[in-house]
Amino acid sequence: MTSKTVGFVGLGIMGEPMANNLLDAGFPVVGHNRSPEAVDRLVENGGERAETPAEAAERADVVVTCLPDSEVVEEVVLGEDGVAEGLSAGDAFVDTSTIKPTVAERLADELGEMGVSVLDAPISGGEEGAIDGSLSIMVGGEDEDLAAQRDVLEAMGETVTHCGGHGAGQVTKACNQIVVSTTLQAISEALVFAQQADADLEAVVEAISGGAAGCWALDNRAPSMIRGDFEPGFFASYQYKDLRIATDAGQAYGAPMPVTGVTHEMYKSMVESGLGDDDNSGVIQIIERLADTEARIDE
Amino acid sequence: MTSKTVGFVGLGIMGEPMANNLLDAGFPVVGHNRSPEAVDRLVENGGERAETPAEAAERADVVVTCLPDSEVVEEVVLGEDGVAEGLSAGDAFVDTSTIKPTVAERLADELGEMGVSVLDAPISGGEEGAIDGSLSIMVGGEDEDLAAQRDVLEAMGETVTHCGGHGAGQVTKACNQIVVSTTLQAISEALVFAQQADADLEAVVEAISGGAAGCWALDNRAPSMIRGDFEPGFFASYQYKDLRIATDAGQAYGAPMPVTGVTHEMYKSMVESGLGDDDNSGVIQIIERLADTEARIDE
Repeated sequence: MTSKTVGFVGLGIMGEPMANNLLDAGFPVVGHNRSPEAVDRLVENGGERAETPAEAAERADVVVTCLPDSEVVEEVVLGEDGVAEGLSAGDAFVDTSTIKPTVAERLADELGEMGVSVLDAPISGGEEGAIDGSLSIMVGGEDEDLAAQRDVLEAMGETVTHCGGHGAGQVTKACNQIVVSTTLQAISEALVFAQQADADLEAVVEAISGGAAGCWALDNRAPSMIRGDFEPGFFASYQYKDLRIATDAGQAYGAPMPVTGVTHEMYKSMVESGLGDDDNSGVIQIIERLADTEARIDE
Repeated sequence: MTSKTVGFVGLGIMGEPMANNLLDAGFPVVGHNRSPEAVDRLVENGGERAETPAEAAERADVVVTCLPDSEVVEEVVLGEDGVAEGLSAGDAFVDTSTIKPTVAERLADELGEMGVSVLDAPISGGEEGAIDGSLSIMVGGEDEDLAAQRDVLEAMGETVTHCGGHGAGQVTKACNQIVVSTTLQAISEALVFAQQADADLEAVVEAISGGAAGCWALDNRAPSMIRGDFEPGFFASYQYKDLRIATDAGQAYGAPMPVTGVTHEMYKSMVESGLGDDDNSGVIQIIERLADTEARIDE
């Protein structure tokens, strides 16, 4: 049995290493990207070039996309020379972008009518996870469609979780972003308060990390927040975009989000203040501005 | 050298096992409690009885209090027959109650003027931690005063962290409650949203627990939240009281708390709805009511 061919559209910071992992796993990969340099590198690594998304889809059995937002995904899939033009009945489409669950559902409907099997499969784990293939992949779609593409997904990620029908992968990614960002916001409020009350910030973090407040963000971000180090792991501007997806989805599905809504406003302030290229933990700077202080170690 | 005598005021759910641990560690303990049954049990275990807080203080070198709120602590310490009447210069006072940092600071000032060394030392770890001596104790006060009472604190808790000057223990406890409650609130919003969008709630939790959203609450409370099991580990009414302390302290110290403020309102709703005796993770029920749904496993 010959390996199925993967069409890959969107060879950016995440997509390029994911496509390379597919090559390494033995899949023929036909790549397309808006700017051609990333395709040149893919070809050097043994991949092939497609001039348009439609061509990548025509030459492949399954198309994987990794694109910045809902609008770009819609354009690349349904627009002129888009993926949909190249897909045929029996092909598969897997979108690893983080987009609105409602858009994921609509794509599944439209491509489904063509006889294409569709999975929404947003990823988390960052550039490092994309390079070393340790991404967590949250999948929405039919059981049998996931089973058919599990080999492709497992070439790119370590954990593949089936979260429900079409859109459920995007819903899960939004849940992840709700918890991540609100935890960072809560830690920001706690640290600025502790600073205003003259407590020892590092001791505060040490004292509360081991109990019911314990979390990844307290272990991995509070120390750098106290140092005022906001070197990006995950851009605040991306956090803002993803929170916008979450609150839009809250509106679409009728889910109230009182705290998430406030956190969304904090990231809006951060991006509007020109801090969008800082790490998402840099949201503490907005609370510091509101308090007119800085939660910092005394050097 | 003979062991110092500990006066213990407030032999409730937390205080009684803490006093027993002091006895087990070899400290003579003179106990007082508003209702006498707990003192009877302490005496059976080898402790002694004091008729008033003042008497407990008179007969002890260090007084430990474990009381429900700021008002009770002020009354028991500064009121008629209170601890202050029995304290002398050179004695020590250690309050393990969770109270307003500003009240802790005032007590430290007033007792300090009498030559008494004062520590605020609120605890976390619950009844189980009080029984097995594994409490986390967050301490505010002077270095040398903590050094002098470390033996007493280590008889009751496993982790003793010095968080700064007077009040810093209470500030740290408030930080703990900010992060705990806001994380539960964020998880509640995420789960109700996932339910409304028809995702598989257990898969959502599994998919996001391993990454940047990972936290104690997701591991230890999300599964029972999905089951609709709100058997109390920590009463929502206590969470509300502690959040009130946090937001009051935010006002006192000039620390903005946009997300904490919203979470405080959610716990207010919970208590006002008659759900104060549920676990603090039961805050999801308020979001469910707002959404007119229930985030539950399909049985």
